[in-house]
Amino acid sequence: MRRVAIAGVGMTKFGEEWTRGFRDMLIEAGTRALADCNLHGEEIDAIYVGTMAPGSLVGQEHVGALVADSMGLTPVPATRVEAACASGGVALRTGYMAVASGMHDCVVVGGVEKMTDTPGNEVASALGGAGDQEWELFMGATFPAIYALMARRHMHEYGTTEEQLASVAVKNHSNASKNKHAHFQNEITIETVMGSKYIASPLKLFDCSPITDGAAAAVLMPLEKAKKYTEQPIEIVASAQASDAIALHSRESMSALKSTQVAARKAYEMAKLSPKDIDVVEVHDCFTIAEVMAIEDLGFFKKGEGAKASYEGRTALNSEISVNTSGGLKGCGHPVGATGVKQAVEIVWQLRGKADGRQVKDCEIGMTHNVGGSGATAVVHIMRKA
Amino acid sequence: MRRVAIAGVGMTKFGEEWTRGFRDMLIEAGTRALADCNLHGEEIDAIYVGTMAPGSLVGQEHVGALVADSMGLTPVPATRVEAACASGGVALRTGYMAVASGMHDCVVVGGVEKMTDTPGNEVASALGGAGDQEWELFMGATFPAIYALMARRHMHEYGTTEEQLASVAVKNHSNASKNKHAHFQNEITIETVMGSKYIASPLKLFDCSPITDGAAAAVLMPLEKAKKYTEQPIEIVASAQASDAIALHSRESMSALKSTQVAARKAYEMAKLSPKDIDVVEVHDCFTIAEVMAIEDLGFFKKGEGAKASYEGRTALNSEISVNTSGGLKGCGHPVGATGVKQAVEIVWQLRGKADGRQVKDCEIGMTHNVGGSGATAVVHIMRKA
Repeated sequence: MRRVAIAGVGMTKFGEEWTRGFRDMLIEAGTRALADCNLHGEEIDAIYVGTMAPGSLVGQEHVGALVADSMGLTPVPATRVEAACASGGVALRTGYMAVASGMHDCVVVGGVEKMTDTPGNEVASALGGAGDQEWELFMGATFPAIYALMARRHMHEYGTTEEQLASVAVKNHSNASKNKHAHFQNEITIETVMGSKYIASPLKLFDCSPITDGAAAAVLMPLEKAKKYTEQPIEIVASAQASDAIALHSRESMSALKSTQVAARKAYEMAKLSPKDIDVVEVHDCFTIAEVMAIEDLGFFKKGEGAKASYEGRTALNSEISVNTSGGLKGCGHPVGATGVKQAVEIVWQLRGKADGRQVKDCEIGMTHNVGGSGATAVVHIMRKA
Repeated sequence: MRRVAIAGVGMTKFGEEWTRGFRDMLIEAGTRALADCNLHGEEIDAIYVGTMAPGSLVGQEHVGALVADSMGLTPVPATRVEAACASGGVALRTGYMAVASGMHDCVVVGGVEKMTDTPGNEVASALGGAGDQEWELFMGATFPAIYALMARRHMHEYGTTEEQLASVAVKNHSNASKNKHAHFQNEITIETVMGSKYIASPLKLFDCSPITDGAAAAVLMPLEKAKKYTEQPIEIVASAQASDAIALHSRESMSALKSTQVAARKAYEMAKLSPKDIDVVEVHDCFTIAEVMAIEDLGFFKKGEGAKASYEGRTALNSEISVNTSGGLKGCGHPVGATGVKQAVEIVWQLRGKADGRQVKDCEIGMTHNVGGSGATAVVHIMRKA
């Protein structure tokens, strides 16, 4: 396998895009990523696009070819990959394989979702397809409900409180306020979260990531080639993925994601690193409880101590471990298929020292953690300055 | 890159499955593929599943994890890939990359679609998502209409006749009648086709592939490893993919698929072979005109001579080039995401000499050709006895 690096990255400002379709957003993100490393379109060998539910949301499948067409890149092979909310992460991993294998020398990885401006109640039911349609969604278990069950269990087992969960949202809004690409750029307080309405108890409105439109892209090359296109190539030193039961009721634990634990273990092995080596991490905080479980399952805190650690500020910018400097899914927004790629964009910016007011000091090694559904898929990447 | 071989294959009988969901079909196909090479589940390193529109058709995304879960294979990484009707082909190609790269040593590739027993008019509109939703489907251009335009253009440019197109369906039903896995197992005549109703002139009912449920699977390994699991490993000597404009009106030609031509050229280069070396080929005959264009674009016949060649029997079993011995999409059926993998299953059976009454004599090298939408994606694989 060849060593693989990210040469260029780009993303749209995340938010509600009432006047643009997802092909517009992908073109913008892709063009920015190409410009970021002075790459011409004819040098691209393949495209991988992560998107979850364009068929249900906008009636469009075959998004790989659509992107190649829209960007004027035909006949480049273009493939969509999907693993629900981890679609962006698996797109990055597939692009990594394509370069590592020697199959392609220059791959563009994109992630996108168009979630506003879709008909009727489509978004909630489309997102429900990330879980078990027959045994969860059909019975009324939407995603806030599923994560609420996990939160209740975490509270029961470890004494986690609603205020502690709220601190995750407060921290992520604070980081997002320093990120011009974020959906939300306003700071909030514990009181904001605690005073918001319950969506699925104990999760309140401000415990939930928003419905967001957006796209992100990254250019992958063999490391030596990347050095010719950028002065700051970021090497992908680990790419790992794991699955778990798709329905929550079939899992070993309701307060941990085994898929995250397995993917993290593999990633640390592949990179010959441990949690203490990671300077900055983007984790999958679709709900506040998800970030709490993630920082435990990734090994940054002991099981059961994640919420308390968050409340104590140990995950804040330039604290023990800087978690979700982009603002995470909560603050930066969660255009489902784009999220996994956006996480990589943020880590590249951090490792380059180009993260503006949210820059992590002495930042050498970063990680991304992308979850599909309620944890049936987890993808972990580790990146470092080359 | 490592050499990659198919060690085991399996598929369901294609047809209308009113009592089974797609997870049942995938489990059956997957289990057969594992049994075919005496593989135990715990030896599997990764799963790639091709499926086009499960979100629209049955409300379920995240099919990779669903398969891993249903087959008891968690925490194996499992990813869905999609390129419309070429989803199975891109799944095979992604699995090939995963093994070639050294990332994984044992990969299961699956393809599936559940198309009957879905609500209302969903199938036609879901399939329309393979084209350009904004500029084709929304304007009323369903897939029979789009292929009808291509047929009309081919007739205009080359004098192709409806009887010649009909001969493709007759040949494919004849082959399907010798395949116990085929959706249709009845022979038909030119008169059957010519007497059937127009769906989109000049295409009649019997020019169109049916709505089918089904699944297929293949086990991929490094060649040397595969030799330990089967006495008849089939090496994948080329894997190529290309894209083209997603909307027909943006293409250079309406009577040829440039994506097929580009993918075929790359595949022949990769395998150091030419069309005359291919003994058996499964091509993408979603409509009879599609097979005609395919055998031209793949280089078996000169442009414009495909329909005449078919009418003259030059594509029949054990003629000049045996095309669609399985019965193709027309006779064997077209469960969209499964088709690209089923094509590989058929070629493996042919190269092993296990294709029953439809066996091609002295069969050494085979090819599969899978098309997404109306040609915005084409995937070509070449396989040979190892």
